[in-house]
Amino acid sequence: MKLNETLKKQLDHRTIRAFKDQSLSQEELTTLLDVARHTSTSMFMQGFSVLHITDMDKRAAIRSISTQPYVGANGDLFIFLVDLYRNYQIRKQSGNDDGRVHTTDIFLQAYEDTVLAVQNTLNAAESMGLGGVILGSINDDPEKLIEVLGLPKLTYPVLGLQVGIPDQAPQLKPRLPLEFMAFENKYPKDFKIESLHDYDEIVQTYYDLRDANRRIDSFTKQVNGAKLNQHETKRDLQVKVLKNQGLCLDFK
Amino acid sequence: MKLNETLKKQLDHRTIRAFKDQSLSQEELTTLLDVARHTSTSMFMQGFSVLHITDMDKRAAIRSISTQPYVGANGDLFIFLVDLYRNYQIRKQSGNDDGRVHTTDIFLQAYEDTVLAVQNTLNAAESMGLGGVILGSINDDPEKLIEVLGLPKLTYPVLGLQVGIPDQAPQLKPRLPLEFMAFENKYPKDFKIESLHDYDEIVQTYYDLRDANRRIDSFTKQVNGAKLNQHETKRDLQVKVLKNQGLCLDFK
Repeated sequence: MKLNETLKKQLDHRTIRAFKDQSLSQEELTTLLDVARHTSTSMFMQGFSVLHITDMDKRAAIRSISTQPYVGANGDLFIFLVDLYRNYQIRKQSGNDDGRVHTTDIFLQAYEDTVLAVQNTLNAAESMGLGGVILGSINDDPEKLIEVLGLPKLTYPVLGLQVGIPDQAPQLKPRLPLEFMAFENKYPKDFKIESLHDYDEIVQTYYDLRDANRRIDSFTKQVNGAKLNQHETKRDLQVKVLKNQGLCLDFK
Repeated sequence: MKLNETLKKQLDHRTIRAFKDQSLSQEELTTLLDVARHTSTSMFMQGFSVLHITDMDKRAAIRSISTQPYVGANGDLFIFLVDLYRNYQIRKQSGNDDGRVHTTDIFLQAYEDTVLAVQNTLNAAESMGLGGVILGSINDDPEKLIEVLGLPKLTYPVLGLQVGIPDQAPQLKPRLPLEFMAFENKYPKDFKIESLHDYDEIVQTYYDLRDANRRIDSFTKQVNGAKLNQHETKRDLQVKVLKNQGLCLDFK
């Protein structure tokens, strides 16, 4: 099968974290937001919004939360929000009750809307020759983030997306082979860690070639390591912040 | 700005629910799954899996849960899962503890991985001239769905995706104008429902043209209506099922 340009970009996806010192043109910016706007949404409720962060103080504050030096540096920074505030206001200003906006179900639907829009926007950016990085680290201090962004109840920042002209050319990162993550009809519960031996070696080689001076672990070692180990982290405050924001109130 | 083929497809996105009676070729199937596999994932934890449902009994059972006649009819049906079972097994079989796999934080990260992969796969399908529909309705009975799919703990079905050769040509659905969902630096809390008057008329006209015999409401009327009104629904069992699956155990 001949791959089209979209597929080529998708199969060649690399996260870009270093950008040239140039912002999007107004036309590029509008196009990206317009793609976000055209993303599928659950029940047509359009439960998300996008903040484009150009204010340098806000960018610095978000960088400080995420503790990643590239966040809010070069390129354009977007924060994708669950937005049930708008629909809540529509109901309130119509003299209606809150309905289901505080339920976990409606929150998860809006969460999906938000994340779908992130990926759609990233695909758009990559098709334009730009690079991007999806930023989960904006929620490394969720209370602080809500404060920095001045967000009302019934909104919730899910992911950041930073895009720009790539200033690096990283290698393609080796993903889990299909046999480990795509199955026909039945989920295989008999997974054996030994079956990942070859993949672990591929991941190890990838890191060794990327930076011979910095030892990074194989996949199974990463899963066994700090990322998933129990530790104190403000990320766990997401639970409290969701409740503060009036979301998932039926989650007990 | 000249739009490339990817952007054209994205800006022209329509949900397709009627497909011709033809399944994906093996090559198309592998390409779509390979795109899913190359999606960005949080902390490289690769927290999702995909089930391709070809079993006709399972398709019928999922159709019955979603109560949508097109679900599992023509085309190919995929279920995208949060998958923390694999990483849990890696830790367990290494003699390690469960770590953070039961936290809301890690669940949400895996949820993001899953939803990003759904959109990436849909974009791939659309680039190939196929159409698709994202299916939130698979969770209209979440207990039943877990049973039908035979899923182990630490997995959770998030969205279905059905793709195939379009057998309909719906109109482009009018989305909220940019001014209502994309903002610079600051979220505008002073939203006024009156500002949606023109958009409401556009949505109303869209529905009237689509089906003159069936009255469907404007956007603000939909927000004020059944979709967000309080009602009994098994969808609210998602909270219980998440806990049953060993997920979000710190959510109280």
